[in-house]
Amino acid sequence: MPAARILLGPGPSNVNPRVMKAMLSPVVGHLDPDFVKVMENIKRLLRIVFRTKNEITFPVSGTGSAGMEAVMANLIEDGDEVVVGVNGAFGTRLAEVASRLGAKVHKVEAVWGTIVEPAKVAAALNAAKDPKLVAVVHAETSTGIHQPIEEIADLAHRHGAMMAIDAVTSLACVPVEIDKWGIDACYSCTQKGLGAPPGLAPVTFSARAMESVHKRKTKCRSWYFDVALIEQYWGPDRLYHHTAPITMNYALYEALRIVVEEGLEARWRRHRINAAAFQAGVRAMGLQLAAQEGYRLPQLTTIAVPAGIDEAKVRAELLRLFNIEIAAGLGPLKGKIWRVGLMGEGSRRENVMLALNALEEIIGSMGFEIARGRALTAAEDAYSAEGTGAGEPPAEAS
Amino acid sequence: MPAARILLGPGPSNVNPRVMKAMLSPVVGHLDPDFVKVMENIKRLLRIVFRTKNEITFPVSGTGSAGMEAVMANLIEDGDEVVVGVNGAFGTRLAEVASRLGAKVHKVEAVWGTIVEPAKVAAALNAAKDPKLVAVVHAETSTGIHQPIEEIADLAHRHGAMMAIDAVTSLACVPVEIDKWGIDACYSCTQKGLGAPPGLAPVTFSARAMESVHKRKTKCRSWYFDVALIEQYWGPDRLYHHTAPITMNYALYEALRIVVEEGLEARWRRHRINAAAFQAGVRAMGLQLAAQEGYRLPQLTTIAVPAGIDEAKVRAELLRLFNIEIAAGLGPLKGKIWRVGLMGEGSRRENVMLALNALEEIIGSMGFEIARGRALTAAEDAYSAEGTGAGEPPAEAS
Repeated sequence: MPAARILLGPGPSNVNPRVMKAMLSPVVGHLDPDFVKVMENIKRLLRIVFRTKNEITFPVSGTGSAGMEAVMANLIEDGDEVVVGVNGAFGTRLAEVASRLGAKVHKVEAVWGTIVEPAKVAAALNAAKDPKLVAVVHAETSTGIHQPIEEIADLAHRHGAMMAIDAVTSLACVPVEIDKWGIDACYSCTQKGLGAPPGLAPVTFSARAMESVHKRKTKCRSWYFDVALIEQYWGPDRLYHHTAPITMNYALYEALRIVVEEGLEARWRRHRINAAAFQAGVRAMGLQLAAQEGYRLPQLTTIAVPAGIDEAKVRAELLRLFNIEIAAGLGPLKGKIWRVGLMGEGSRRENVMLALNALEEIIGSMGFEIARGRALTAAEDAYSAEGTGAGEPPAEAS
Repeated sequence: MPAARILLGPGPSNVNPRVMKAMLSPVVGHLDPDFVKVMENIKRLLRIVFRTKNEITFPVSGTGSAGMEAVMANLIEDGDEVVVGVNGAFGTRLAEVASRLGAKVHKVEAVWGTIVEPAKVAAALNAAKDPKLVAVVHAETSTGIHQPIEEIADLAHRHGAMMAIDAVTSLACVPVEIDKWGIDACYSCTQKGLGAPPGLAPVTFSARAMESVHKRKTKCRSWYFDVALIEQYWGPDRLYHHTAPITMNYALYEALRIVVEEGLEARWRRHRINAAAFQAGVRAMGLQLAAQEGYRLPQLTTIAVPAGIDEAKVRAELLRLFNIEIAAGLGPLKGKIWRVGLMGEGSRRENVMLALNALEEIIGSMGFEIARGRALTAAEDAYSAEGTGAGEPPAEAS
C-alpha cells in the first residue's frame, strides 16, 4: 500500500484523521435504520454546505465526474439546447457529456486561464432558439480560474433556462451560494474542499430542476443516475435503487461535520489567507501566476513554468525529495503550468511554507535565478497582515 | 455511526478486518506511481477471480448497478437488438437499462424463482432480426436462482451475438468462468462474495466486446462509463479520466488478496457446504425453500414465509434480539419470502447455527409449529457428511 504524501495537487487532498477513523465504522445494510440516520444527516449537512434549502440534495454514488453526468443526464433530453462555458478541461468535458446525451450544445469559448465572459453567454443565449440549460465550471481545475456565476445565472433565468454549475473544486473552499445565486443544479466531489477520500459526488437540484425532471418526455438515459429514482431511495420512501457506498458515506458524514464545526466563513477565509501567502511567495520567487488576475482560485494556484525549466522534473523532484505532490497542466497547458492545491485539510500555513521552500530549492538548483528566502518572507508578510493563526485548520477535536 | 451487525442479507456482507485496515492506508493521488501499482495488482487479481485473460478487467467507479450500466452503455447503440432474461428484479432492471439506452429489448420471461430456459432464449434469438447481445443474471439476488449460463452463451454466439452476465451476487461465491463459458462482458460488485464495502463494480470485457466498443457508430451515451476512455486511464497510457475512489480500491485490493489466498475452489466449496447445512436446517424446521430445486444459490437462500407469519416482524425481531440482518422479498415476492445471505466472509458455520437458532426461536414464538432443535441437528449432520472445518473461512492472516 502507498505511503503518505503531502497532497498539494488539484485533489485528492489530505484526509483528516477523524475521517479515516469514521471509515472503520462497521458496514451495515444500505436500508438499515442506523444507516438511514446517517443518510438524513448527510443531506442536512450538505444543504448547509451548499447554502440551499433544496430537498433533493444527496451524494451520487460515484466520483465528481459522475456528479457531472448525473446533472446533465437528468436535465437533458435529445435535442435540448444547452449553453456551455468552455475555458478549460472541465468545461470541455461538460460540453462533451451534454453532446453525448443528445443536447445541441452552444459552446461559449474562452482562452484557457481566463473567465467565460457573461456578455458572450448572453450572445449564445440570444442565438439559441429555446435554451434549456446553461452550464459553467465554477472552479476550473485545469486553469485555476474562479468563474463569476451570479450574472450568468441571471442571464440564464431571463432566457427561461436553468443554471447548472460544476463546484467540484469550489465547494467548501470558496462561497458556493446555491439559493442566493439561483443555481438549479450543482455537483461536487468529496476529495477536495471537503477533505474525504474520492468516491461520492454531492449534488443538489432545485425545485425547478426537479419539476423539469418529472416533466421529461423521455426517461433519463441513465438508470443509475436517474434522480427521479434515486430520490425515492434517499427520500422517505426508502425504495431500493442501488446499494449506497456505505463506508464512503461514513467518510463524507464525518468530513461534513468537520466543515460545519469550522464554519463555512472561517473555512473560506482560511483558504483565502493561505492562498494569498502562497501566491505572494510565488511572485516573490520571480515566478508568474498563470490565471487571469482578479479571478484566481485560492484553493488551486496555477504557476507558469519558466523558460528552460523541465516542468516534469520539478514535479518528480518535489515528490522524491520532499514527498510533495503537485500537478501538471492539462491539454493546451501541458508542460506550461504547474497546479498547486491548498484545499480542505491541506490549506494550512505549514504547507504554504513547505511548498515555497521546496519549489525554491528545486527550481534554484535547475538554474532559475532566485533570491533565496524572499518567498518565505513575502508569505510571512502576507500572514502578518492578516493576524496570527489564520492559516491553520482547527486542531483535531476529541 | 452504526453499530456492527451480523449481515445475513443479500449484501453488503460482513467485511474482513484486514480489509478495514487496508482502508486506513493514506489517500494518494490517482496517478501516483504507488497507486498505479495498486491498480495493476487489482487488475491481475480480478483476472484470477473472473477466470479470464481479458486485458480489459478493472473496477468501475460506482456500485454494482453502475457495472450493469457500464456494460450495457458500452455494448448498446440506438436500435440494437438485445435479448434479456427476466426472472427477477435484476433481470427486470437489465431490460430497463437496455431500453433506456435505446436498445430494442426482447424479454425472455420466466416466473420469479425459476430459471430462464435456454430453449426460450433460443426462440427469442430466432425471432430477432440481428441480435447483438444476450444478457442474463447469473445469481438472481431477488429470488435465489442460480442461472445456468454455458448453454445460453453458446446460443448467443451461434447467433452472432455477444453474451453478458450479471455476476453481482455470484463472483467469488460460485464458479464464474468468463473464458471457459465464452462470456463477452460481466460485472459484479465488491460487497457480496468479495467481502469489501460497497463502492466499486469489477467488470471484464472480452477482446470481441472491446472490438465492438471500438467499432461503435455513435459515442457511448455515458462519458463516465465509456470503457474506450477508461481503458486509457486503467491501461498503460494513464490518461486522466476521473479520480478513482482510492480508498475503495485499497479495500478491493485487500479483499481480492484474501480471496486468492483462500483459493477460489476452497471458497466455492465453503459456500456450498454452509448453504447445504443451512438449507437442511431450514427444511428440518418445517419451512420451504422458495427457489426452483436444483438451481438454488448457496450464497443466498430464499425461504417461503409460512401462512400466518408476519414476515416483517420476523426480520425486525431478528435485528432487535439477535442483531442479525436478513432481507425481505422484492416485487411480486414482497411479503412472500425471506432472503438469507451466507456470502463472502459471512459464509461460516457459526452464522449458519446462529441464523437457524434465531429463526427457530422467533418463528416458534409466533405460533409456527417447530420441533425445537431439529434444525441444528440437521445442519450438524450436513457438516458431518462433509468432514470437519469445512464451514469456516481462513483465520485472519498476520
